[in-house]
Amino acid sequence: MLELNEVFEILKSNETLDECVALENALGKITSQDIIAIKDLPCFDNSALDGFAIKFDQKENGYKLIDTVFAGETRKTQIKDNECIKIMTGAIFPEGADTILKIEDSIEKDGKIYPKNPEKLKKGDAHRFKGEEITTGNILIKKGTKLEPTHVMLLAAQGIYNVKVKPNPKIAIFSSGNELKEPWEFANETQIYNANALGISSLLQKNGFNSSYFGIIKDDLEQTINSLKNTSNFDVVICSGGASMGDADFMKMALDKLGYIQIFDKINLKPGAPTKAYKKDNQTVFILPGNPMAAYICNLVIVVPFLNNSKPEMIKCISGENIKFKKGRANVVLGNLQDGKFYSLNNNKYGSGMITPLTQSDFIYISNPSEEQIMQDQEIYIMKIS
Amino acid sequence: MLELNEVFEILKSNETLDECVALENALGKITSQDIIAIKDLPCFDNSALDGFAIKFDQKENGYKLIDTVFAGETRKTQIKDNECIKIMTGAIFPEGADTILKIEDSIEKDGKIYPKNPEKLKKGDAHRFKGEEITTGNILIKKGTKLEPTHVMLLAAQGIYNVKVKPNPKIAIFSSGNELKEPWEFANETQIYNANALGISSLLQKNGFNSSYFGIIKDDLEQTINSLKNTSNFDVVICSGGASMGDADFMKMALDKLGYIQIFDKINLKPGAPTKAYKKDNQTVFILPGNPMAAYICNLVIVVPFLNNSKPEMIKCISGENIKFKKGRANVVLGNLQDGKFYSLNNNKYGSGMITPLTQSDFIYISNPSEEQIMQDQEIYIMKIS
Repeated sequence: MLELNEVFEILKSNETLDECVALENALGKITSQDIIAIKDLPCFDNSALDGFAIKFDQKENGYKLIDTVFAGETRKTQIKDNECIKIMTGAIFPEGADTILKIEDSIEKDGKIYPKNPEKLKKGDAHRFKGEEITTGNILIKKGTKLEPTHVMLLAAQGIYNVKVKPNPKIAIFSSGNELKEPWEFANETQIYNANALGISSLLQKNGFNSSYFGIIKDDLEQTINSLKNTSNFDVVICSGGASMGDADFMKMALDKLGYIQIFDKINLKPGAPTKAYKKDNQTVFILPGNPMAAYICNLVIVVPFLNNSKPEMIKCISGENIKFKKGRANVVLGNLQDGKFYSLNNNKYGSGMITPLTQSDFIYISNPSEEQIMQDQEIYIMKIS
Repeated sequence: MLELNEVFEILKSNETLDECVALENALGKITSQDIIAIKDLPCFDNSALDGFAIKFDQKENGYKLIDTVFAGETRKTQIKDNECIKIMTGAIFPEGADTILKIEDSIEKDGKIYPKNPEKLKKGDAHRFKGEEITTGNILIKKGTKLEPTHVMLLAAQGIYNVKVKPNPKIAIFSSGNELKEPWEFANETQIYNANALGISSLLQKNGFNSSYFGIIKDDLEQTINSLKNTSNFDVVICSGGASMGDADFMKMALDKLGYIQIFDKINLKPGAPTKAYKKDNQTVFILPGNPMAAYICNLVIVVPFLNNSKPEMIKCISGENIKFKKGRANVVLGNLQDGKFYSLNNNKYGSGMITPLTQSDFIYISNPSEEQIMQDQEIYIMKIS
């Protein structure tokens, strides 16, 4: 039995060949090399405002307007003593100027432009310098960065349109169990619907991973073997059901027969203890419990971090109440934040086979096996449930 | 000039016809009616564990094993006095039984099954009752709920495969400005790359909204009018650039000419003050500033909440430092959480035309116009930057 905090150490992502994606498809991908700046930003001295480009020292004399320059114009302009040029935001800074006087802060008198409040004007106002944000040759984004919308924006600003990233793993999903009917089928009173496949795939989707669904494996050794063979060119296989120790669990037998090597068997976590992982060549197989709550939680705390190759983002907060749990294992506590404090769902009482408690919770707390409770006002770390 | 907190009141989403989507496509969509449970969950009494179904009161006598029942079997079974049935997780609960004895907690002696620790066994252990989680006819998910992975799982468990949701708006994106080159083009020293279109579309994508990109509108009235006409069957148009008061801003003229009605002109927010919104028939047009940081922030705090039809999710935390800003307007403070405390990026000093500060921040704080500072250890609400 493996401790939850050891799972992340033992499950290393495979080294894969990089792929090159256009910026439109880069969101959420992980960079596979440092990305170097190829353009100074800004790429020329320019105005941060709509205003008048002036020499600051002559502000008492007023300025004669000699030209207007727009953003997008490529000509270079110049002012001499007591001259100014009207300049739009982003336009090239005129030679000889050092300061921008905002249009709203200016006044015209006898054909000359003056600052309304000369004492408020500061030398260098709204003068953006070439390269002040980024200088060519420096590292823009480090290797291993998950690309957020802000990174995509920065890369676009550099004209870096192709990015080397780690390809997303190809993910196959199964469910297992004779009792299951698909949600688009009809289930009678004694049959239950397969909630896990769509629960798992939509949690992956929310985290930026597509998956392919391969259907329900019946409790039959030969069919289980054939189903696993069908996924041989997938990087990750996630199966729910077939994890616990009942007589009808053929998954372990099938994996053994196909030459998979067990990475771990059971984890010290509730719910989710029967979770297993296997490996063969570059493929990792996760066998999650059939119980929907356990399957969802293990997908959240084990599979998604594995796919992201990083531990889940934890949020520090304060517990709003005393919460007790069983010592000696990691316990998942469902709950919500109210006014910055974490409260367990329904005083931590709900059936372990239910789904509704998941829909009623925004966060989970995972206890340390050495803990048997957390106290009101104790600082704790929680994570989002999706 | 509109206050930021008034923007949400004034911008009401249009009432649109509902659409019916399959559960695979329901993630992130908003339900357009209450969804009613159509199946009891569980749909029959069953076992929560692999174990032996027994009569609790006879635990001292031992039980004779008479049958084994698997999940997925539809036959009904029954025990008489001092009998037990081996039962797998999820299998139908035998008639006459009231308790499940875990396999691991059982012992076999003289052909009979006994609990290892009779005093630890509780009546009703692992007996899941039909309908204990959900009863047919009750509301499962309320109208107006944004469907999370947990909701998708719950709907799958009910066999509810088609869901009535509000259709996502069709979104068109423009950029505006002669100085712009696309990231896939070549920009010389005096041209700048269009960072905004991809920054805006990827932030929308991260929030579950697809968009169509319509290119760069040059600073020309006729072209601006034609471009806007091309988007007439889109619900939302987002244009960056063309918002400030320079001579070259043709957007406002074009919108007036086409009969759009202004919803607001300028908001009391920095960065992002020049942001405008217009309306015509069922279409809403947002004109965001050309400055990338302002465009990103306004997309985040105005457009995304409008599309979601709900205010951004705020996280309560404590400020790690004193942060000063200008009174009389809402100021966006970029920053990060460290150990549960919010710290502004680089002591709140960075150029307003830059993109890198966005990539270095995970959160923003938005000040109230009546504030001129927040104090160390003050409770504040922040929101994620993407």
